[in-house]
Amino acid sequence: MLSFGVTTMSPAMKRALQLAKRGRGRTSPNPLVGAVIVDDQGTVIGEGYHRRAGTDHAEVVALKAAGDRARGHTLYVTLEPCNHHGRTPPCTEAIIAAGIRRVVVATRDPNPEVTGHGIERLQAAGIVVEVGDGQAAAEALNRPFMTWSRKHRPYVILKAAMSLDGKVATAYHESKYLTSESALAHAHRLRRETDAILVGVGTVLADDPALTDRGPGRRRDPVRVVLDSHGRTPATARLLTEDSPAPALVFTTDRAPAEWERAIFSAGGEVIRVPANPHGQVDLTAVLTELADRRLLSLLVEGGPTVHWSFIQAGLADSWVGYIAPKILGGENAPTPVAGPGFHLPEAPGLTITHVWRRFPDVILWGEF
Amino acid sequence: MLSFGVTTMSPAMKRALQLAKRGRGRTSPNPLVGAVIVDDQGTVIGEGYHRRAGTDHAEVVALKAAGDRARGHTLYVTLEPCNHHGRTPPCTEAIIAAGIRRVVVATRDPNPEVTGHGIERLQAAGIVVEVGDGQAAAEALNRPFMTWSRKHRPYVILKAAMSLDGKVATAYHESKYLTSESALAHAHRLRRETDAILVGVGTVLADDPALTDRGPGRRRDPVRVVLDSHGRTPATARLLTEDSPAPALVFTTDRAPAEWERAIFSAGGEVIRVPANPHGQVDLTAVLTELADRRLLSLLVEGGPTVHWSFIQAGLADSWVGYIAPKILGGENAPTPVAGPGFHLPEAPGLTITHVWRRFPDVILWGEF
Repeated sequence: MLSFGVTTMSPAMKRALQLAKRGRGRTSPNPLVGAVIVDDQGTVIGEGYHRRAGTDHAEVVALKAAGDRARGHTLYVTLEPCNHHGRTPPCTEAIIAAGIRRVVVATRDPNPEVTGHGIERLQAAGIVVEVGDGQAAAEALNRPFMTWSRKHRPYVILKAAMSLDGKVATAYHESKYLTSESALAHAHRLRRETDAILVGVGTVLADDPALTDRGPGRRRDPVRVVLDSHGRTPATARLLTEDSPAPALVFTTDRAPAEWERAIFSAGGEVIRVPANPHGQVDLTAVLTELADRRLLSLLVEGGPTVHWSFIQAGLADSWVGYIAPKILGGENAPTPVAGPGFHLPEAPGLTITHVWRRFPDVILWGEF
Repeated sequence: MLSFGVTTMSPAMKRALQLAKRGRGRTSPNPLVGAVIVDDQGTVIGEGYHRRAGTDHAEVVALKAAGDRARGHTLYVTLEPCNHHGRTPPCTEAIIAAGIRRVVVATRDPNPEVTGHGIERLQAAGIVVEVGDGQAAAEALNRPFMTWSRKHRPYVILKAAMSLDGKVATAYHESKYLTSESALAHAHRLRRETDAILVGVGTVLADDPALTDRGPGRRRDPVRVVLDSHGRTPATARLLTEDSPAPALVFTTDRAPAEWERAIFSAGGEVIRVPANPHGQVDLTAVLTELADRRLLSLLVEGGPTVHWSFIQAGLADSWVGYIAPKILGGENAPTPVAGPGFHLPEAPGLTITHVWRRFPDVILWGEF
């Protein structure tokens, strides 16, 4: 769900991209990567993808599958092979050792400190390297990894559930079960593919969400994050007390009382104090840097309306997902998904709608800033 | 655009429905009707559709096309043939005279005073009549005609152009050119297929719209309607002064001053006084009855937010078309498409989204109440 984009590309690269997607929701903080080894007739000799952080990289999986037959043939890989020792040895050395003759790379490593190094190492070993086959799709596949690598912050997705007339709740503040079960399932899948999920303290006080993965199957909660400039999160909040394998981080400023911090800590949360912006609120850049330091590649911002406004206004929003319920709520004073003072029309940020899904009875719009 | 729906049906009826659609935007106050004459092998002998009010009905067009070859064969027609003299002679007599042996009708005439009469006349003449082939699609094709016939009011479409975050204007009241050229073209096509178009006096004062058909090609302005309970429409309003073949009707109550009425009349408008509702506003049912009396089958309500609320709250809205521009306007105080006090969640009316169109960069949602 965090990836899209089509382009013309070779059949082998298309296959490699398909394989890469199988790792979705499990590779973070690593990117999704797929690899295919083919002979001169285009017959697949070996293929693979990165299944999970800590396991073999895609190139190594494909090389192991091909064995000795890889020698003299071509490797297609969706991302530039790494040239450094991480949790696994460098892929470049494995490729050279296997006798690969030609490597086709969809896109370079986005990390400015290592980009091109893998390609140079292969070329130095006499391997022919081509870059750019399926590049747009490969970039789209790993938007979170690309954003994190280039900007040292998570890829930020703003999420809102609204009525057909643009309300996130009635004028009487009712919002529960506005959208349908099928839209909810979509939202939970999105949560599962995201490293962290963020709400404002207003949402904690109003809705007391647990922010856990309640979808079927394997449980992998995202890290739960609260923006709470003045330390108002109650120690009884479900996101602190609900059983979860993921930490709950409460970002605040030096205005929050020390006894509140101790209460949050006792309840199982972690308080992180960051600088305040001129409005006395937690500085969003500081929050995102902290999350990036924790190798969290993607962040789902679930509101409320003031939090959405803050991210958009700061230019820190990458995409928008709107769950639209076919209901009319009306109400001059009913809340909408983005509050704050609002933009003038020429300054209003534009998006590109990349996906429209129908999940009866709802419609889901995905846009990129 | 005012019709949709699919169902299983015979190929001949499918063809008849396709033909019927060709009359779109030109048959009002008559319905869209198509007819096909086939022999026992299913070969088409003659076909036709109702092109424009005042011209031959579909059955007659098809019969004329078939000539003597129609005798002994089957007529498929999307609506029960008329049995009364209108601007044209009864179709039932033409069918009987042509020697048609069997008639397949998609749906009965919705007018409670004449429904079934055409079918009975045919049966009395010894013709086999079958009803129901493609009924759902035939009903969907003529929603405005069906609503007008059954409820004696126009089919009411609420239209709104909004941002991705549900705003119809910025917090600073800017709304011009929120949506794109291609969405505008879609909206103008909708206007062209609608008999009347309505705005509240607030919209007249704020935007001064002409409400004319500015699309390419043949000009057929809808009747322009203003809701103006207290007589605030200025005599200089473009919808009065702009050159148009269609009348401009200003509905008001007895609260509006007589001199204002004279000024509107001099400017080319027509003032219609109707009863006030308990809030002192023009009674919507009285407005719709007057429009139905004028044989206006469909009404496009272009806002503002309070007018939309009034129609929905009164249960007088049939469908909703939302033009969504991929922009974020933000603003706690920015206006949304439906104002008023708002519904509680259990009372919020639900719709079925029947169409989603993408008109780059915008998305258009069509829903039915």
